[in-house]
Amino acid sequence: MTSKPFKKKVLPFIIASAVALSGIAVSVPSAEAQAPGKSQGKAHNQGKVKNVIFLIGDGMGTSYTSAYRYMQDNAGTKFAEGTAFDSHLVGQQMTYPEDPDQNVTDSASAATAMSAGIKTYNNAIAVDNDESEVKTVLEAAKEKGKATGLVATSEITHATPASFGAHDVARKNMNAIADDYYDEMIDGKHKVDVLLGGGTKLFERQDRNLTEEFEKDGYSYVTDREALLANDDEQVLGLFAPAGLPKMIDREESVPSLEEMTTSAIDRLEKDEDGFFLMVEGSQVDWAGHDNDIVGAMSEMQDFEKAYAAAIEFAKKDKNTLVIATADHSTGGFSIGSDGIYNWFGEPIKAAKRTPDFMAQQILDGAGVEETLSEFIDLELTDAEINAVKKAAETKNLTQIDNAIEEIFNERTHTGWTTGGHTGEDVPVYAFGPSSEKFAGNIENTDMAKGIFDLLKAKVEIDDK
Amino acid sequence: MTSKPFKKKVLPFIIASAVALSGIAVSVPSAEAQAPGKSQGKAHNQGKVKNVIFLIGDGMGTSYTSAYRYMQDNAGTKFAEGTAFDSHLVGQQMTYPEDPDQNVTDSASAATAMSAGIKTYNNAIAVDNDESEVKTVLEAAKEKGKATGLVATSEITHATPASFGAHDVARKNMNAIADDYYDEMIDGKHKVDVLLGGGTKLFERQDRNLTEEFEKDGYSYVTDREALLANDDEQVLGLFAPAGLPKMIDREESVPSLEEMTTSAIDRLEKDEDGFFLMVEGSQVDWAGHDNDIVGAMSEMQDFEKAYAAAIEFAKKDKNTLVIATADHSTGGFSIGSDGIYNWFGEPIKAAKRTPDFMAQQILDGAGVEETLSEFIDLELTDAEINAVKKAAETKNLTQIDNAIEEIFNERTHTGWTTGGHTGEDVPVYAFGPSSEKFAGNIENTDMAKGIFDLLKAKVEIDDK
Repeated sequence: MTSKPFKKKVLPFIIASAVALSGIAVSVPSAEAQAPGKSQGKAHNQGKVKNVIFLIGDGMGTSYTSAYRYMQDNAGTKFAEGTAFDSHLVGQQMTYPEDPDQNVTDSASAATAMSAGIKTYNNAIAVDNDESEVKTVLEAAKEKGKATGLVATSEITHATPASFGAHDVARKNMNAIADDYYDEMIDGKHKVDVLLGGGTKLFERQDRNLTEEFEKDGYSYVTDREALLANDDEQVLGLFAPAGLPKMIDREESVPSLEEMTTSAIDRLEKDEDGFFLMVEGSQVDWAGHDNDIVGAMSEMQDFEKAYAAAIEFAKKDKNTLVIATADHSTGGFSIGSDGIYNWFGEPIKAAKRTPDFMAQQILDGAGVEETLSEFIDLELTDAEINAVKKAAETKNLTQIDNAIEEIFNERTHTGWTTGGHTGEDVPVYAFGPSSEKFAGNIENTDMAKGIFDLLKAKVEIDDK
Repeated sequence: MTSKPFKKKVLPFIIASAVALSGIAVSVPSAEAQAPGKSQGKAHNQGKVKNVIFLIGDGMGTSYTSAYRYMQDNAGTKFAEGTAFDSHLVGQQMTYPEDPDQNVTDSASAATAMSAGIKTYNNAIAVDNDESEVKTVLEAAKEKGKATGLVATSEITHATPASFGAHDVARKNMNAIADDYYDEMIDGKHKVDVLLGGGTKLFERQDRNLTEEFEKDGYSYVTDREALLANDDEQVLGLFAPAGLPKMIDREESVPSLEEMTTSAIDRLEKDEDGFFLMVEGSQVDWAGHDNDIVGAMSEMQDFEKAYAAAIEFAKKDKNTLVIATADHSTGGFSIGSDGIYNWFGEPIKAAKRTPDFMAQQILDGAGVEETLSEFIDLELTDAEINAVKKAAETKNLTQIDNAIEEIFNERTHTGWTTGGHTGEDVPVYAFGPSSEKFAGNIENTDMAKGIFDLLKAKVEIDDK
């Protein structure tokens, strides 16, 4: 044996800064055992399913869940601590749509697959390829007398939640989707009891004010965090931004976290003795992926993980709640490592106190480049990095400024991207609670809906031909 | 509801060509049920583990297994048929090493994790971070009196097989690794009974001729497909190329497939009444990934899938064989879809009859560009594509010619790449047979070895601190 180039003994991944100035805090590691075969203990998956909490991390492919783990890792231990998701991994799902022109899915087709059990075209909101409306698991739950909820960080009328609570031939018709939430009744009742997310402008319109209509029918209407937390009505419409919410690390006090919206939804829904169905979307993992913004992506992963942890905490106490988490597809062709380098560093991400989008907007609005970068990035930047942003700022183009700031993080973390769109690889599936094994192995995205329909004992005919 | 831009009804993914001229044939779909919860039936995972077949697709991340499925898909059916792997998915594993300078693994560190249950530095062949040798599952199997085998399409002394049957501080010491296969005895016996792969030059050396030494000790020595298939000795050394084997679609008749080597190994090993341990590596999925060569990558996926199917076929009959398949890491930052396009096409890959490497070599050796491309690619190429290769050919640089040909396939398939190195996302784990559930969920790569040691009832102390 010859000697090897062994330099120094340091631990893998960058040591966490002792001073917690970062915008993204270190998560508490999951208490679940990580040993092989121990991850799905007998205890949690017995019993009857009364409630279903279905969480969708939009765009959250395996690169995202893995990177998030490594970013949050405690470098002082030999093995990775694991995220709230890790110990509940049961398999992967296939995401391809049935579209005449595209074989990589969009969020509408994928959500319809998961809500209604059918493969359909990209753009479809709970309609089949012939544009006919298809029943969703949320609707089936309501038919069974259960309480229902939709929670998202996008507009609550965006493709993913829409595919559970509305029907439309095109995802862009968000006014019509908002109308559906009010107009489409099941057994004389509104079909969604709890609606929490963004999108005020889609409900308070010149042609129609849906917030007043919902209030008239007994719903509470809240528009900030404080009002949400102070309210405990069983039916609530909560809209916390004109369109999508700001990303987690950009939020003001007045905007609730996804965890708070999830917990608030559960608190209301669990009052129904028939049980509930709740869909929760971490909507903006995908948006950050489209933007090739690793800071935003990890911010939204954390927002989503905390919501997942809250759902698990409830399920552990309740014992009759099935929790499923998955992604609809992956986004951006994000890779952990790039350009031949065998490292990916989470530390530069933790040094960001706002997203590049936020910083770019400040600069466009007149803030100095150096001042802005210095205020919101806890790193000593090089002249080259600062000058690249300065040069971009001269264009007065928001996207160019944003890209220049993102490039700092992509370079320093060694994050790779191949696209501003989606990618087609299988995505992870996590499940906890009774019947969680139903979603194990390599499954179709349509198996999500089929499994939930089955647990609801819903009579639904799905055209599988 | 408004109308949507719905053009024509065609099935997802390109319709397979009616004329089967392609270098890569369509695989027979798995007969396993694909329904949720059905993928891990009760039947196969009962009983005692007598034999273990551990298959490693080097570099075979989730993008590869997904893309291979879609390339092989029968476009005439609504749902994807699935690969031989799909119905056995049990989870994912984490691949990070414990290296002073890198947190994305190499194949040596990952293979040592899977063979010996320890996290170590990149470059390590079954040695710990202090360079001390660590026991491998192959060695433990031999100590228990089992027959053992290593099969690979790389040099059989390459990092992955080496980490099961040798020990070295550095993977590049392939002569010393070949020596280890002969010199390191267990209970007075050579520790690897069946060695099949590439690497003649590492065994037939000026300083030592290991093939003669093995033959003197009773091993058969074979160097081509015919001789391999005609021979049924229990101990065999088969070396079919000076270094790595040609990729599947580039192979001559004289070179066996990975499936043939695997079946040949099993036929010999199963004669041992104490059972056997066999490691099979699809070595060059990774090599193609490093090269950003989607044709080579899918060729090697097919070679590996067929070997896996052969192992499963044996296990189904035997009933006391555990089959595990996984990857050591992913490679290249390969994405299904790139540059904002929501499509990935397998058809251009199936139109290739040789790898870009092979074609580039022909061109460098004097063959005409147009003639070569026309002979080996069953597509009508554009002038721009042909001219790009002609321009590269003028440089007389093999890599540039290769890259120009690869670019044709990357563009036409919409394949994205971010690196010539490895990436750090979790990789899929497949398992079939008794105790397959032991490897389910989100596991560490070290859990592979720990699980196998446990099944072997081997007394191994692993330093987990």
